[in-house]
Amino acid sequence: MYNNSIYLDYNATTPLADEVKEAIVSSFKFWRNPGSSYSLFEKMKILQARSNVAKMINTQTNNIIFTSSGTESNSTVIHSVLMKYRSLGKKIHIITSKIDHPSVKLPLINYSEMGLIDLTELPVNKYGFVSPQDLESNIRENTKLVTVMLANNETGVIQPISALSKVIQNYNRNHSKIHFHTDAAQAIGKIPVNVADLGVDSLTVVGHKFYGPRIGALFFKKPEEIIPIFYGGGQERNKRAGTENTNMIVGFGKACELVTKNISKYNKDMKNMRDYLENRLTEIMGSIGVGVVVNKKDPNTPRLPNTASIALVGKLLNAKLVLKHAPNLFASTAAACHSDDVEQRASQVLLDSHVPMELATNTLRISVGRSTTKKDVDMAIDYIKKSVTKLLNDN
Amino acid sequence: MYNNSIYLDYNATTPLADEVKEAIVSSFKFWRNPGSSYSLFEKMKILQARSNVAKMINTQTNNIIFTSSGTESNSTVIHSVLMKYRSLGKKIHIITSKIDHPSVKLPLINYSEMGLIDLTELPVNKYGFVSPQDLESNIRENTKLVTVMLANNETGVIQPISALSKVIQNYNRNHSKIHFHTDAAQAIGKIPVNVADLGVDSLTVVGHKFYGPRIGALFFKKPEEIIPIFYGGGQERNKRAGTENTNMIVGFGKACELVTKNISKYNKDMKNMRDYLENRLTEIMGSIGVGVVVNKKDPNTPRLPNTASIALVGKLLNAKLVLKHAPNLFASTAAACHSDDVEQRASQVLLDSHVPMELATNTLRISVGRSTTKKDVDMAIDYIKKSVTKLLNDN
Ligand SMILES: Cc1ncc(COP(=O)(O)O)c(C=O)c1O
Ligand SMILES: Cc1ncc(COP(=O)(O)O)c(C=O)c1O
Repeated sequence: MYNNSIYLDYNATTPLADEVKEAIVSSFKFWRNPGSSYSLFEKMKILQARSNVAKMINTQTNNIIFTSSGTESNSTVIHSVLMKYRSLGKKIHIITSKIDHPSVKLPLINYSEMGLIDLTELPVNKYGFVSPQDLESNIRENTKLVTVMLANNETGVIQPISALSKVIQNYNRNHSKIHFHTDAAQAIGKIPVNVADLGVDSLTVVGHKFYGPRIGALFFKKPEEIIPIFYGGGQERNKRAGTENTNMIVGFGKACELVTKNISKYNKDMKNMRDYLENRLTEIMGSIGVGVVVNKKDPNTPRLPNTASIALVGKLLNAKLVLKHAPNLFASTAAACHSDDVEQRASQVLLDSHVPMELATNTLRISVGRSTTKKDVDMAIDYIKKSVTKLLNDN
Repeated sequence: MYNNSIYLDYNATTPLADEVKEAIVSSFKFWRNPGSSYSLFEKMKILQARSNVAKMINTQTNNIIFTSSGTESNSTVIHSVLMKYRSLGKKIHIITSKIDHPSVKLPLINYSEMGLIDLTELPVNKYGFVSPQDLESNIRENTKLVTVMLANNETGVIQPISALSKVIQNYNRNHSKIHFHTDAAQAIGKIPVNVADLGVDSLTVVGHKFYGPRIGALFFKKPEEIIPIFYGGGQERNKRAGTENTNMIVGFGKACELVTKNISKYNKDMKNMRDYLENRLTEIMGSIGVGVVVNKKDPNTPRLPNTASIALVGKLLNAKLVLKHAPNLFASTAAACHSDDVEQRASQVLLDSHVPMELATNTLRISVGRSTTKKDVDMAIDYIKKSVTKLLNDN
């Protein structure tokens, strides 16, 4: 299965950590319905996991609800704000960024097309991030939600969330409250994430991006303000109905525990490998006369430690073709969810991040993981080199 | 952990079957993002699981989407119908039953209170089921959805879904279409379920009720009519965004495969044990002078093979008290999701099913599973006997 393949697409997903697998398997015995009065151990296990999520992002157990995915966490925030003001009969204005994930942008675009909200998608500046000034000048009297991702999945650019928060706090001092959300899907497990420092009202956590299970969690500063998407059996303190997925929740808690304990090491190891990758690829491509541009590599741009957004310069070096001729390199040209698109068009996120078209079309997203080695990177570069050589020679 | 306890609450949830555990664990290696172009094995595994769900209920792979829970499956149906007519600017009428699960009733009540729908909750007759005549006489010109559960989680009464379907098909012949949904959460794995025979447009499947994982599936006859709750990465053919939970999906597929193969045996074994339980409990209680009424045990009432809804006759024999003094018997007085309610009040489902108040307050829900033995049942009855004796003597 997948023989000789090198996986460098850790922003798409990660495997379960061994400790997480063990936690899941040993939680199979906690199978009783956590809602039943006799299920003391199940309730305890879920509480423990919830507490591990809370600790990881520096909040309290009560501020965490479990969801089925990052998508659901994002949707829950949007839904809560929308429904709050809907019941008051007011049309609200929502701000996001052009480069936010489809699970934020698409529901907003949908609500906007339905005429339920006014929507602003903030551009990012040439460094790849939303500028606080831009946010400030786009706030309107009826702005009720600002949702900007903590780190972009394609460029790896870290958004200035605490600075954006200051703009909002400033505004909130004299006006009615704006809710500030960040989607931290790509940040958790790569950089330290602290909801107090970020100054957010809510934050999305996605297990499978940090070696945990495919469920999500949601931090909400005022959990009483969550308006449920799912009504039913009253689980998650009436904020998210559906029998609790104890096994996945226990695994999720373990994944958070690992992050809390090892974040500095993960960060450093990934950064080492990513830097090695960027430098070495530039060197090797140079040796065959191919230019390399590392998108958003700039002293003014904070980036995730694991993400390399790399354009190979040259008409023939369309990224999809490069990957096609390197079938053993598992990397991507854009977000995983779009990788089956047949078109060879460039990623909109890259274009919106001011990557020029001819580079955007040629951009590989290579993202390293906790256990990526120099040997892996060397092999990946070798695959790229062979593919590039073939593309150049065949034409 | 839970020493000496006898679990007879299989309607609340079931453990993972050993084969399901194995399937989950051996799917840990299929961890790549199923949306990535290189993830051939992941796509295959998910397809296989989808096909297993389809086979179990006699439909095609394309008619199945995976969800995070039964609650989500139910919500998706309601949401799809609501949004379809919302965009047409019409207020619609929806029919459910008084005894449907909160994950059907609560969203409907919520929409009704918001003024978005008109809602009818059909009563059930003295046998515990919705009568086709009653359905027929409650259909209105703007009725667009009828959702009635296939089997009740508390009484075990099987609803006459194909007869209800005939009423609707009859109506649909001369009018605009009514969508007919059934929540089969409690039926799957206990009785054969065949969507063609039932004549439904959609059907909810819940893994953890038949020894599978805590996710759900949804059968939809015209999948193109699903209107997503979650927008984002385009998973589940754009009908349900969120990175696929491959491990849970694979386990789910295995659980369905087991049901397809063994349903007759499961049905027969459970029925034997349930009948033994009802008879033996009646006998033993009789020996200490306590009357027993088995709710909805009537030749006119089809029941699930595993569910015993049993009232102990006597002022002192409140079911919550009986269970309190039988701490090693894991059973319930109502649905699991409500078991933490402090009040000693009777289940509304039982009252609505025409169980008289004094019996409803005293009703135990005892539900057997695939591997329940006579020894388990005997022990459970012994716990009940001791509890009852204590309650009678202490007062
Ligand atoms: C009849 C019925 N429908 C739906 C559900 C909801 O399932 P879940 O809580 O897993 O979403 C249940 C079980 O709780 C049920 O018994
Ligand atoms: C930034 C970001 N947000 C949200 C998500 C959604 O996560 P999921 O698909 O698990 O719901 C992802 C990953 O796909 C992501 O990269």
